Amino acid sequence: MHTLQVSLENRGYPIYIGEKLLSRTDLFTKHMPQRRAAVVTDSNVAPLYLPSFSAALAAAGVELTTIVIPAGEQHKDWHSLNSIFDTLLAARSERKTTLIALGGGVVGDLTGFAAATYLRGVPFIQVPTTLLALVDSSVGGKTAINHPLGKNMIGAFYQPQAVLADTVTLATLPARELSAGLAEVIKYGLIRDLDFFEWLETNIDALMIRDPAAMAYAIQRSCENKAAVVAADEREETGERATLNLGHTFGHAIESGVGYGQWLHGEAVAAGMVVAARLSKKMGMLGADDLGRIVSILERARLPVTIPVMELDRYLELMGHDKKVEGGKLRFILMKAMGQAYLTADVTQDQLASALNDSFKRD
Amino acid sequence: MHTLQVSLENRGYPIYIGEKLLSRTDLFTKHMPQRRAAVVTDSNVAPLYLPSFSAALAAAGVELTTIVIPAGEQHKDWHSLNSIFDTLLAARSERKTTLIALGGGVVGDLTGFAAATYLRGVPFIQVPTTLLALVDSSVGGKTAINHPLGKNMIGAFYQPQAVLADTVTLATLPARELSAGLAEVIKYGLIRDLDFFEWLETNIDALMIRDPAAMAYAIQRSCENKAAVVAADEREETGERATLNLGHTFGHAIESGVGYGQWLHGEAVAAGMVVAARLSKKMGMLGADDLGRIVSILERARLPVTIPVMELDRYLELMGHDKKVEGGKLRFILMKAMGQAYLTADVTQDQLASALNDSFKRD
Repeated sequence: MHTLQVSLENRGYPIYIGEKLLSRTDLFTKHMPQRRAAVVTDSNVAPLYLPSFSAALAAAGVELTTIVIPAGEQHKDWHSLNSIFDTLLAARSERKTTLIALGGGVVGDLTGFAAATYLRGVPFIQVPTTLLALVDSSVGGKTAINHPLGKNMIGAFYQPQAVLADTVTLATLPARELSAGLAEVIKYGLIRDLDFFEWLETNIDALMIRDPAAMAYAIQRSCENKAAVVAADEREETGERATLNLGHTFGHAIESGVGYGQWLHGEAVAAGMVVAARLSKKMGMLGADDLGRIVSILERARLPVTIPVMELDRYLELMGHDKKVEGGKLRFILMKAMGQAYLTADVTQDQLASALNDSFKRD
Repeated sequence: MHTLQVSLENRGYPIYIGEKLLSRTDLFTKHMPQRRAAVVTDSNVAPLYLPSFSAALAAAGVELTTIVIPAGEQHKDWHSLNSIFDTLLAARSERKTTLIALGGGVVGDLTGFAAATYLRGVPFIQVPTTLLALVDSSVGGKTAINHPLGKNMIGAFYQPQAVLADTVTLATLPARELSAGLAEVIKYGLIRDLDFFEWLETNIDALMIRDPAAMAYAIQRSCENKAAVVAADEREETGERATLNLGHTFGHAIESGVGYGQWLHGEAVAAGMVVAARLSKKMGMLGADDLGRIVSILERARLPVTIPVMELDRYLELMGHDKKVEGGKLRFILMKAMGQAYLTADVTQDQLASALNDSFKRD
């Protein structure tokens, strides 16, 4: 087991990465102020892990409530959130009852937001079961639900007590979800870690066949990058944390535009990173070879590199709800070079339209 | 104008108390990161203050969205919260757009929670227009909405940029709301400020006729008490902040039991404080004369001193959803003496049942 520490101003917390952590009840109970918990999971994950996980916690003397929400991004909404509150209140969950998020990004974001707001805040533990959640959404305290007008529009910054990343869960991950997770892994290379990007170019095929050693390394390095960014700018105030949003402005527009649940988040981010790279190239910061490397690694990870066909105006309208908009102006995460992302508002409408237009099809 | 500072670990903020502050747009704009704002108010307050307030802000160059929710505690719910989000998103409100809560406790709690969660947190300013909001709910950063199973069950600790308490708004306050506010004023005397309680015994009649000097003093002293408690225990961790909940465990049960909007919050708190005092007396901490003084001042403020008739089991069930419950055990704010409240779980079922029973009618 590998332990990483997320260092924050007020309170840090550990990320445990290793095999079979789901059965390590001691790692859970040491972060719980009382032996009461509510596990939130979804209809995909529940049949795989909930029975054994619940039994292990019960054996450790934890009084447990379980909440199963329907799987899919389209369920990261008010309705699911309220069903969590209803169950917690009916079970008389208290301020010291711990919420445990067992699942992917949707479960983690939703449960985290429930924990942030139930009784004005209760402890919670993230147990990511998808690669995307392992390397990205479970670390850093961003919690949220979607609104019909935009993704993650309602939420809170709220840090977990701990993150337990059990790499065994990757074995049952559908191939499409594996690819979606790799999009965020590749992102770390592009925004701040060129060495890692180059390692990924060498090892992407090993990751695609879930080679345990390669996977463990990729997860650890991704979490290290994420933890470093979050420690530097927890609440997205300096612009550094915003770089984690590479590809996301376009990606969120795709997810919302085609309807939540159609594209996986990581797939939309992959296509969005290609648009961001294209825009960076148009502005003279990346070369054609850089763009080619990005497209190539994403394709090797079986990720989309073109965006769905919608009117340009529709893209602009959807992007107008981006949380980075300031003074009515869109802001973008671009690359000044491979491995160096930054936040900027200096993009013309022409450059943007041209980058989107060029991204409807493969070069 | 009088300025009080709330001192918090991460960030303090001012409470401005004075006449005609609604027209002091400079006090607003100095706390706004951009000249964009959304004013949330209710159907009672809007006709009184919204036109002139909006005009003043517009004249100061503030781009404004206005949101009017239906008045009443029964509207402090998901539905109103979502209507705020819908309007903010349609207006493309940004992370630096300030929410302004113009109204009583319901508007303040709801708007504060919207500010805490819209785009994961935007700035907000409290402009209380009822006595209850002026002396209590607008100070201290507790935001929330109600759930059918309990009051203030979903919310966040989220501090405003500033509180602007315009005492002129008290002139239009209905008599019943004035009384409800005085319940919280009297509470400060009972929990931590015996001198103030004695001042109130002398001056309650002046407050009932809204004598400006008496009112200004009562507001300032209440806010000082609140600010001191919040500074000492912002997130209700040590038990000190919980003392602000004197009478609230019973009060919330009343509000929820008879249906939100039937009893005003302050009315329920008044009756709840009598139960707490009775319980304190049964436990040998208060004398009959103390209880008599409490009942007497509440009656002089035209507040209820008996609780509505419901089955005892119903009271216990409703109180079981209290946020102070720990390990399945109810916790109460009692008085070890006049002006000295504390948090305790050491109350027997018999004592509790007896105190409730005795509170169905006036002695």
